[in-house]
Formats: sequence, structure tokens, C-alpha cells
Amino acid sequence: MRFVVATNNLHKIVELKPLFPCHELLMPSDLGINEFCPEENGKTFFENAYIKARSLYELLGIPSMADDSGLCVEALGGKPGIGSARYGSNGKELLAASEKNSLLLSELAGVSNRNCAFVCCLVFYYGKQRFMCVQETLEGEIAGSPSGKGGFGYDPIVYLPQYGKTVAELSADEKNRISHRGKAAQRMATMLATLSLGCRD
Amino acid sequence: MRFVVATNNLHKIVELKPLFPCHELLMPSDLGINEFCPEENGKTFFENAYIKARSLYELLGIPSMADDSGLCVEALGGKPGIGSARYGSNGKELLAASEKNSLLLSELAGVSNRNCAFVCCLVFYYGKQRFMCVQETLEGEIAGSPSGKGGFGYDPIVYLPQYGKTVAELSADEKNRISHRGKAAQRMATMLATLSLGCRD
Repeated sequence: MRFVVATNNLHKIVELKPLFPCHELLMPSDLGINEFCPEENGKTFFENAYIKARSLYELLGIPSMADDSGLCVEALGGKPGIGSARYGSNGKELLAASEKNSLLLSELAGVSNRNCAFVCCLVFYYGKQRFMCVQETLEGEIAGSPSGKGGFGYDPIVYLPQYGKTVAELSADEKNRISHRGKAAQRMATMLATLSLGCRD
Repeated sequence: MRFVVATNNLHKIVELKPLFPCHELLMPSDLGINEFCPEENGKTFFENAYIKARSLYELLGIPSMADDSGLCVEALGGKPGIGSARYGSNGKELLAASEKNSLLLSELAGVSNRNCAFVCCLVFYYGKQRFMCVQETLEGEIAGSPSGKGGFGYDPIVYLPQYGKTVAELSADEKNRISHRGKAAQRMATMLATLSLGCRD
């Protein structure tokens, strides 16, 4: 089936496409919406993903999926959390990923509790008041310094003890298998099959 | 697998059990919690279901499912909605189903727009910040008068033009196949299989 993904972020589409091999994923720009920017004023990953998926469904009338994700650091009370993209910008221009990573490392200087979790919430809105969602996590530890060139965002500073690597050191395949977004997308792909809209085999 | 359903309402358990034939559904009272009453102060079906499922998971440490459902009447701006159980009680003792039905019919006297939808949101909370949810609907029309003895709650006054019956006139099997709760539960059962916790066949 065709559905539209409520994002202008190409990184997310590139990560999501291989996880939905049976479906055609469109971006808002493929359907003539060059800037899709609903106000993400939710207080949770779910609320923001829901706002995006529902707005796009109401705009286009076709099933819409939205992702909201971020990094929650235990010693910072769960921050940057839903503010992960805007972290450190104080309402001005967004910082580059490397700047956000440096800022986070400096906030955690001398802090022994390095526990953190990437969180991803996917919402699929497919009819009036009808939707499915899944929220998944990838737990890790904030590293002492960035490492690795894969992935994007906070990936270079999130160390996974069970793999002995940061998320940025995983291959794309490995990341899709274990990451917050990968696990959420795998479950969502199965959930889509319950709509009789999955692969025909 | 075993999971606990965040409800003290036997009607809901009785409806849900046949929809999860591969699983053992427990009530809070089966696990020593005789009154499970978290404050349902959400503004949506999802928020209330999430509050219940998460509270119970945090209390017991085992996967928890919660349902929140109600009847949304278009001409009443979506009410009684999340207030369906407490409709007409003004903070005092809950009205009996027949009293709520009479009240709703009187509120709609002379109103030609009879469109309504039962809505059910199911949330399954299975780990810290990890959950799945599905929200489904059953659209119908508010009847002129109650009819039928099956089901419960508002079922006798919700007429389904495509079946020529009220929801209370459906057999239990028919209701489970097409109802808001039935469809949500069918999808949720498939979603649970993605946790490798479904039927072994």
C-alpha cells in the first residue's frame, strides 16, 4: 500500500524504507506539500507523533505515519527527550548534531549515572479516530566522547555495552535490527498486515 | 503468555477473553489488587488507557493491557465520549445503563443528526517506555428507542444501518467481529504475536 510519512527529514525516510519493503512510502513533498510543519506542541513522543500523523491524514485523506523520537538521559530527568532536535538552540537556529553532542557531554561532565535511552514512537493514522501506535526504546550509556561515523544525531555518543560499540559504529543493518526506530518499525510493519494492507505472498 | 487487564469490569474481561485465545488474561484481583482505581484524568481515550496500563505495569511488573472506550455523538460534539461511564451522574453515583440511554435519547429529541461512533482504545504496556496501542471505532446512528438484550451499556440505542440491527441485537460472535473493542482486540492480538508471545502452533 501507499502511505505518507509525516516528516521532512530525509534521514528518517532513508532509515524507514527498508523496514517497510511491502509498502510505498511517500514524503509530503511527493504529494505537493513542500513544508509540512504542524505545531508539535505535545508533551510526549506519542502526542507529537499523533499530531503529525493525524494532521497529515486530515490534509491528504490517505493513511499517514509519523515518527517522534529522541534521547532521554536519566541524570537529566529524561531530557533532552522530546526536545532532542531543538536541544541547546534556545528557540534560535538548531545546533548541528556535533554541537548538540558536545553540549550533552559537557552537561554530563563528572556525572557517573550515564544511563540513557533512545525512544521512538510511531503512529499510523488510517481513518477517523482510528490509529495504531508502537513505542520502542534502545537503552545505552552516554559515552565519554563521540565515536563512529554511521547513523545521525546522538548516535556517536550512545554506547551499547552489550555490543561494545556506539550506535554510530553499528552497520545500517545492525542498527535497523536493534534500534528504537528499527524495532518500532518492525512491529508497525506487522501491525499494518492486520489492516490487510501488507505484503501479498 | 500471561498479562493483566487493567479493569475491575467483568463485562470487559468476558468480552476480551475469546479475542485472546492464546493468552491468559488476569484481572487485578487475581493478583491481590482488589481495587485498581488509578486517577483517569486523561483528556482522550488513549490517555486514560495509557494511564491505566502503565500504572498497573509499574505496580506489578508484568505486561498490562488497558481499555478505554465510550460513545461519541456527533451532534453533542463527541460527548459523552470519555465520560460515557459517568454520563448524567454529576459526580454522584453512576446511572444504570438504561437511565443513561434514556437521558441520551432525551438529549437528542428532535435532533436529526444521529451519527455516532463507539470508540475503543487498547494500550498494551510491556516495558519501561515501551507500549503498543490500537484505537478502533464502530460507527452507527442513535436509534429512536432502545432495542435488543445483548451486549451492555449503550448497545441497545446504537443502530447499525448496514446490519439493520442495534448493537444489542447482534450475537456475541457478530459483535466481537465488528465492534470497536472486537476490532481493536483482534489487531492487538496480532500485535502481541510480534512480541514472540503469541500462540505456539
